[in-house]
Amino acid sequence: MRATLMYGAGDVRVEDVPDPVIQHPTDAIVRVVLGCICGSDLWPYGSLPASDHGRRMGHEFLGVVEDFGSEVRGFAKGDLVVAPFVWSDGTCDFCREGLQTSCRHGGGWGHDLDGGQGEAVRVPQAEGTLVKLPGIGEDSDLLPGILSLSDVMCTGHHAAVTAQVAPGRTVTVIGDGAVGLSGVIAARRLGADRIILMGRHRIRTDLGREFGATDVVAERGEEGIAHIKELTGGDGTHTVLECVGTDDAIATALEVVRDGGRIGRVGAPQYEQVPMGFPSLMRNVTLTGGVAPARHYIEELLPDVLDGTIQPGRMFDATVSLDDIASGYREMAERRALKVMVRP
Amino acid sequence: MRATLMYGAGDVRVEDVPDPVIQHPTDAIVRVVLGCICGSDLWPYGSLPASDHGRRMGHEFLGVVEDFGSEVRGFAKGDLVVAPFVWSDGTCDFCREGLQTSCRHGGGWGHDLDGGQGEAVRVPQAEGTLVKLPGIGEDSDLLPGILSLSDVMCTGHHAAVTAQVAPGRTVTVIGDGAVGLSGVIAARRLGADRIILMGRHRIRTDLGREFGATDVVAERGEEGIAHIKELTGGDGTHTVLECVGTDDAIATALEVVRDGGRIGRVGAPQYEQVPMGFPSLMRNVTLTGGVAPARHYIEELLPDVLDGTIQPGRMFDATVSLDDIASGYREMAERRALKVMVRP
Repeated sequence: MRATLMYGAGDVRVEDVPDPVIQHPTDAIVRVVLGCICGSDLWPYGSLPASDHGRRMGHEFLGVVEDFGSEVRGFAKGDLVVAPFVWSDGTCDFCREGLQTSCRHGGGWGHDLDGGQGEAVRVPQAEGTLVKLPGIGEDSDLLPGILSLSDVMCTGHHAAVTAQVAPGRTVTVIGDGAVGLSGVIAARRLGADRIILMGRHRIRTDLGREFGATDVVAERGEEGIAHIKELTGGDGTHTVLECVGTDDAIATALEVVRDGGRIGRVGAPQYEQVPMGFPSLMRNVTLTGGVAPARHYIEELLPDVLDGTIQPGRMFDATVSLDDIASGYREMAERRALKVMVRP
Repeated sequence: MRATLMYGAGDVRVEDVPDPVIQHPTDAIVRVVLGCICGSDLWPYGSLPASDHGRRMGHEFLGVVEDFGSEVRGFAKGDLVVAPFVWSDGTCDFCREGLQTSCRHGGGWGHDLDGGQGEAVRVPQAEGTLVKLPGIGEDSDLLPGILSLSDVMCTGHHAAVTAQVAPGRTVTVIGDGAVGLSGVIAARRLGADRIILMGRHRIRTDLGREFGATDVVAERGEEGIAHIKELTGGDGTHTVLECVGTDDAIATALEVVRDGGRIGRVGAPQYEQVPMGFPSLMRNVTLTGGVAPARHYIEELLPDVLDGTIQPGRMFDATVSLDDIASGYREMAERRALKVMVRP
């Protein structure tokens, strides 16, 4: 089959790779109907050292079950399914607690394994991992929204849930990328009173307003902090969704959170240290969040996607064929596209 | 009146200072019956630069209301009261939320104001701050336990509450000082299944076992981490109470917490940065806690002190007169005493 490999920064190729086959009785093979490029794929796209050994890419996809092992129950060939961005057995203590990202038999796609940016994927722990989409066709207009549940929408939701966004609470969302916009959708859905979106890309922040942002702060750093303090009577917001992952973003989060408030961080940390010394202790600031257990959230969010209550599919503003995926990476890296879908 | 002043590291003196008087209609004057020395007092005792201007000391006390301003309702002269270690109005949004340490009209004792290590204290915002102790006499054996609610017992409780200690959850308590031992008491009270106390002072860890610790780990650093991993099947504990505040303590907390777990930190940070980069994000670790809103907890914990369900007063292992307070500091600094009471 054809699949995407990255050989170094800016070097994305589509090549022939072995067709996936059932290796364990808990595996399934899924033919990919729709995949996409993740903001996190842009980190290696910008920095991966050149190598002769390409890295398989992709971790967000939905598709059709083509085969499955003897221990996989509840699925039939031909089922349309969506996969979260890590696999999990669904039965261990962490899975039962809703932390499938720490599953005792879990793992992630890509690198030396199949990824979502290819024609098919071997899905380990298929019964615990995949979510069926009954009644949805391969040509449904709802597929982009459902695809967003693989990662980005659930990631924004995780930031909001862990930060305890709720009616009566104010929110700052740091970052106007797809995760930040998902955070806006989640904050609105959870009933936040006021949602301040920090971002400077007008097309994205306009979409953020449509998703529920009540204010947009385009400034960064000290100016951005001052603007949010001004909007909140000097207090900052009860919750902050940190959807970027840079030093500046986490430092900003600590400044704009209200005393006793909570920062839900989901941006992949480019930092190694967080400046949480004496001042944040005196202010009772909580740093929470983490990599999102998407599998835990899919069933909760799916009905809202299906009935149009939330429309995360609107974040996909471009679609490429698998053969053209390199152009999709370029569009996202150069910020001409917000989030790019891939149709094998 | 007589009061304690610190003129520099190791230089504690008792001197004559002006008697406190009502300055605002919300003030009360409390004659101190019992005060104590805080572990946090040992930081300046070890490092305060020498000065001609002494710093007033103390922030934990109980005593008798001697006078009060025209706006203080609900108190009478002669009432025995306990004070939390910061004052608060009891009416602002933060106080109503239970975060009295961020009160909009609050503050802390000591420095240039009265502290608890003296004969009397002017209490600002007395109505919001003080808690009456009806039926308790100045000679009650319960006074040490009640005094612990000024700070240390509520601080350990705050660590446990914010870390969400509960039945079915395991706990690591880092530090066998009075705050750590209070954390053990709180964890037991909240129903924790297993309480691992990290400490190397046998007298203190023995008391910790009496308070409810199920295991004691005497090692620090990598060895201590390995021991806790061994005790927990490699996972670490659901919750960690960080009751020290050093770089080593917070780093240990991050290593011994289970995936998805919560660190309630209450140790005054001697660090400025917390190593919470990529690994802690992938493990969904939450850092919470902060300076304890003791006022919020006193009414909850007081009944358990009065009926003997918890016995935090046992942590006080020495008592000095006010004139002898310098020896109390020495005893604590040299770890011959765990926590020293002061009787003016």
